[in-house]
Amino acid sequence: MSNKKYYFGIDIGGTTIKAGIFDEQGILDKKEEFPTRKEEGGSKILGDIVDFVKKKQEEYDNKIIGIGIGVPGSVTQDGVVNKCVNLGWGVINVKEELSKLTGLEVCVGNDANMAALGEYAKANEGEESYSSALFITLGTGVGGGIIVDGKPLIGANGAAAEIGHLPIVWDESENCNCGKKGCLEQVASATGVVRTANRLLNASDEPSLLRKQDYISAKTVFDAAKEGDMIALQAVKRVTHFLGLGLACACGVVDPQIIIIGGGMSKAGEFLRVEIEKEYKENVFHPSRKTPVVLAKLGNDAGMYGAAQLIINS
Amino acid sequence: MSNKKYYFGIDIGGTTIKAGIFDEQGILDKKEEFPTRKEEGGSKILGDIVDFVKKKQEEYDNKIIGIGIGVPGSVTQDGVVNKCVNLGWGVINVKEELSKLTGLEVCVGNDANMAALGEYAKANEGEESYSSALFITLGTGVGGGIIVDGKPLIGANGAAAEIGHLPIVWDESENCNCGKKGCLEQVASATGVVRTANRLLNASDEPSLLRKQDYISAKTVFDAAKEGDMIALQAVKRVTHFLGLGLACACGVVDPQIIIIGGGMSKAGEFLRVEIEKEYKENVFHPSRKTPVVLAKLGNDAGMYGAAQLIINS
Repeated sequence: MSNKKYYFGIDIGGTTIKAGIFDEQGILDKKEEFPTRKEEGGSKILGDIVDFVKKKQEEYDNKIIGIGIGVPGSVTQDGVVNKCVNLGWGVINVKEELSKLTGLEVCVGNDANMAALGEYAKANEGEESYSSALFITLGTGVGGGIIVDGKPLIGANGAAAEIGHLPIVWDESENCNCGKKGCLEQVASATGVVRTANRLLNASDEPSLLRKQDYISAKTVFDAAKEGDMIALQAVKRVTHFLGLGLACACGVVDPQIIIIGGGMSKAGEFLRVEIEKEYKENVFHPSRKTPVVLAKLGNDAGMYGAAQLIINS
Repeated sequence: MSNKKYYFGIDIGGTTIKAGIFDEQGILDKKEEFPTRKEEGGSKILGDIVDFVKKKQEEYDNKIIGIGIGVPGSVTQDGVVNKCVNLGWGVINVKEELSKLTGLEVCVGNDANMAALGEYAKANEGEESYSSALFITLGTGVGGGIIVDGKPLIGANGAAAEIGHLPIVWDESENCNCGKKGCLEQVASATGVVRTANRLLNASDEPSLLRKQDYISAKTVFDAAKEGDMIALQAVKRVTHFLGLGLACACGVVDPQIIIIGGGMSKAGEFLRVEIEKEYKENVFHPSRKTPVVLAKLGNDAGMYGAAQLIINS
């Protein structure tokens, strides 16, 4: 058997755990998924991961030498997870516990940072070589991750790249879940897209494809906009305006080499990307105007890939 | 004679060059200033610095082993200065040229980043130990510098920490010098404070101490506000609101351990600091709410100190 070494890249989500086995070049060799057992304060989660690790070590003849892991919450530099509400966790030193239970080296990161690292590594597989990137994820909320010198920027309070809570929506009247008013994610998350469209529908009698829908989702709004529906187009205009503005603010602060747009909403594709890029260019300080704005490529696997990168580069 | 080693910390300004000699601990031993000769495309500037370096090397018995230098323009990672309009320079490899002319190791940085590094080092002389900081300088314009892991964040285009051009002043009607509309520095620079006050004076007949002034400066506006003048207070409220908002955006992106306010306008002191801190706390994402907001300590010497730090830490 070859002397090849392998690494685990594991992404703990609120519903499923995605676990991959990667070679030293970060290429995925095998992937499995199993449910996240959140019962009893999430106390079974690490045990399930340990079982998986042991089973795979047998299969791989003990050639897997480290674990990279992403969790949906803030993580200190020492690998301590500080309350994962989604998993029922309190304060847990995941790095120490998992290392003790498996005998392997462990690196832990926040899930958005891991997704950023995964997409950053993927972008680096192309012709260009990047050492920095800004990743924004458009889903139920708006999150992000920033890579500087090849590493995720964590921040003093684990709150770097919290792009969804940039206070830039000056005309917002309702409060964000975080308690503030005017956060980017109030407009630019999937939920925000639906809110924006519903407000426009309620404010006029203008005919719209959206009025025929029983249920409006971000996808129905983007689909209607692509068909030229005026209300949907207005909603998309407002969403992409604030997204471009938020990215212009973030890039005025870190000036990355590339901007990557991910999350479920990014499935709206080139239509969405072009609008965001246009608003970004109009609002950003001129030296950063040519920074490429691209769509993410790894979808839901980004966090798993990034977790593997974290341990491989450690 | 002792075996102590020394370093030059040099800050090239548009009017004067500040040059200090620092020991290995970054403590200033001697400081001189000489005019910046901008004639003939600034071609005499490096020669003047070389003359100074040679004179001091004699005095210090050749114990000065490196030069850190700050310039008012963007600088690449290789030490190439890309058009310093203020000095009349085109593209110059300052690192290479100065190293060739003096035989010493040379590090070059942007002046705002150097000032950030200087103030960051100064903050670290206190009881707390920091590895990151956000520095904002309020002068004719608004600039800044960000320190991450003890080093200035430069950015792909040398445009990181361009806080003055964050596009957040949503109700601005005029264009910024940069060509965009709604940049923070349109409101929050010394020039911006005067513009804001003048607009308020023109918009009402309300009596104000400012109406008795022949010439309104940022200082007269802050002085009048401290005396309770209503127009001046409104101007300060608008300025500090957008400053707090801008800092909240920047800290939502990098989440530094400390925020340092410098530049000529920071002479308004505690009055200004308290108002900025209040607006910052109201607008920033909650994990970063307790980040200390402090006044800079080094005044005009910050760039010189930071340049010394750059070479000492190289």
